Amino acid sequence: MAFEGQVITCKAAVAYEPNKPLVIEDVQVAPPQAGEVRIKILYTALCHTDAYTWSGKDPEGLFPCILGHEAAGIVESVGEGVTEVKPGDHVIPCYQAECKECKFCKSGKTNLCGKVRAATGVGVMMNDRKSRFSINGTPIYHFMGTSTFSQYTVVHDVSVAKISPEAPLEKVCLLGCGVPTGLGAVWNTAKVEAGSIVAIFGLGTVGLAVAEGAKAAGASRIIGIDIDSKKYDIAKNFGITEFVNPKDHEKPIQQVLVDLTDGGVDYSFECIGNVSVMRAALECCHKGWGTSVIVGVAASGQEISTRPFQLVTGRVWKGTAFGGFKSRSQVPWLVEKYMKKEIKVDEYITHNLTLGEINKAFDLMHERGCLRCVLDVHA
Amino acid sequence: MAFEGQVITCKAAVAYEPNKPLVIEDVQVAPPQAGEVRIKILYTALCHTDAYTWSGKDPEGLFPCILGHEAAGIVESVGEGVTEVKPGDHVIPCYQAECKECKFCKSGKTNLCGKVRAATGVGVMMNDRKSRFSINGTPIYHFMGTSTFSQYTVVHDVSVAKISPEAPLEKVCLLGCGVPTGLGAVWNTAKVEAGSIVAIFGLGTVGLAVAEGAKAAGASRIIGIDIDSKKYDIAKNFGITEFVNPKDHEKPIQQVLVDLTDGGVDYSFECIGNVSVMRAALECCHKGWGTSVIVGVAASGQEISTRPFQLVTGRVWKGTAFGGFKSRSQVPWLVEKYMKKEIKVDEYITHNLTLGEINKAFDLMHERGCLRCVLDVHA
Repeated sequence: MAFEGQVITCKAAVAYEPNKPLVIEDVQVAPPQAGEVRIKILYTALCHTDAYTWSGKDPEGLFPCILGHEAAGIVESVGEGVTEVKPGDHVIPCYQAECKECKFCKSGKTNLCGKVRAATGVGVMMNDRKSRFSINGTPIYHFMGTSTFSQYTVVHDVSVAKISPEAPLEKVCLLGCGVPTGLGAVWNTAKVEAGSIVAIFGLGTVGLAVAEGAKAAGASRIIGIDIDSKKYDIAKNFGITEFVNPKDHEKPIQQVLVDLTDGGVDYSFECIGNVSVMRAALECCHKGWGTSVIVGVAASGQEISTRPFQLVTGRVWKGTAFGGFKSRSQVPWLVEKYMKKEIKVDEYITHNLTLGEINKAFDLMHERGCLRCVLDVHA
Repeated sequence: MAFEGQVITCKAAVAYEPNKPLVIEDVQVAPPQAGEVRIKILYTALCHTDAYTWSGKDPEGLFPCILGHEAAGIVESVGEGVTEVKPGDHVIPCYQAECKECKFCKSGKTNLCGKVRAATGVGVMMNDRKSRFSINGTPIYHFMGTSTFSQYTVVHDVSVAKISPEAPLEKVCLLGCGVPTGLGAVWNTAKVEAGSIVAIFGLGTVGLAVAEGAKAAGASRIIGIDIDSKKYDIAKNFGITEFVNPKDHEKPIQQVLVDLTDGGVDYSFECIGNVSVMRAALECCHKGWGTSVIVGVAASGQEISTRPFQLVTGRVWKGTAFGGFKSRSQVPWLVEKYMKKEIKVDEYITHNLTLGEINKAFDLMHERGCLRCVLDVHA
């Protein structure tokens, strides 16, 4: 490859300060070191976690940085010792690594690989605790170990899922975060059974993916809850069978749902990141067995609470990250499922823009009707 | 039988007012109506739930009432339609009923039978919504559907477990509450696997039964946490392998345990009823899979809280009531296990008194070295 072993200068969207528009800059991307992979990012979507860190509310957010974590691309070059991918491979960068060697990976109980977290959590690479991004010598932090708002990025090899070369990258980039998070919350974390009654709080991309997962699992009733009633129409396409707008009721939403379901739902999913809604999601569960899964990410410092009686009488409170999917092992499988039309992806893409239009894409996230906006990174 | 169909006048300990000494009275016990069973209580133990309601802190506590829910006796007579027990059967009254017909019993997911709860929750019997206890015509409320601080009591047939006539009632009365709660929290609710690291907060009867259950399940480390270091000695006999006194540490106890276990415990159990300890019990669990079970009953109105991040990163928060055991089906099995010396019971009995000494027995509960005090009800 033309650039192998050399610094690449390319376009990237740099977040210099919280809440200030991103700036498209010429960024230097160093070659991958041992155990690292340099990827040419072709398409990236925006997710609310990008917006959260960009907003400055994330106490672990570091600036200047290159955001982005839901993307797809092609391996440009690999560092020493990298054996599982090679230049030319089609890949999805995974913010949740999978090393297959650490205590977490070996436990068989979780997808939360711990191998590179100490580095990715502070915006650097493991090898030398430094960034591979710079602008005229000034380092720019990585983000979530992915930094996909750049034409080229460097990630740890344990953070790269190799996918079918036939998959359309402009679509399957969504399998880097939101869609797997929702599907996996149902399949891996809650393990919803056929016939279950399911409640989903928040009908964005993740909530709709939960609906899709619940439908695939054979849920008998899939109740969507959102303060925007206009979402019901689109949500039906993803499996929602009933819709409740909390604003239409005087009673607390948990009581509304308990009444509607003769005692409560079997499974509930909070897909917003609001701690009050998390409580409602737990408390709308059926006594004896109802399980609530926290999928949304709450703002830093906020706490959930409830009466312990809710748990003593049989409700279970859990959470999920990346839907419990083991990233390198299972993202390729999700891509295959998409190729076989067993899961939706295209339907979540409501907008297509270019990297240069990224600030417009951030604005779109707050607009009705926007699920995912995919950016063509090289247009 | 001599009294069949007639009112029995016998001794019972009546709680007239919160926090006032119980009074031994001559109480009239009406005959059992349809679906009811009158039991001659031979032995009853005291449990902290009795003390909690007696203290007046239980907003659902009704006075005057006859407390008591951990006991054993012999069926005196049965009402119309009762087929599963007959006069002379040895039984344990079960505050958690099991009707085998309701939505809960049929679910296969919970032991929280709902059939008689609407009546037992308000101190009366289902049939006529009245009490079977009275003193010269003034009704005295039932408690938890059991009211075992009486020489005779009337319970619903779905609340009676028939046990082996060979079991010593002065011992197996303990299988009506505390011991099954602890064992079942481990076996049914947490489902602890061999090799697990377990933390137990509070080393009273329930906490020690958790230790015993964890040992039987093959846990590799069983860490007891209590503010009374003297409890370690006795706790060793029940399976505790390590002891931590939070008072010996400046760091929060959850951090102490995380440090002690290279990242946290696999399972934790709160056996006190303190909401701050419930939080610590959750937060000392290992990222990715640690499961915390609330066993203790918190005071009314108190709430548990934590950062949702604790759950999103894989910890699970649950609770248990009567250890998840289906009472009528499984209490007899626990009695058999005791008879085969597979579970301890005798070792929890530290004191023996008579019904007439019940106020002394309540005092004993707060004394070091007291686990269970068994009252001979007819002495």
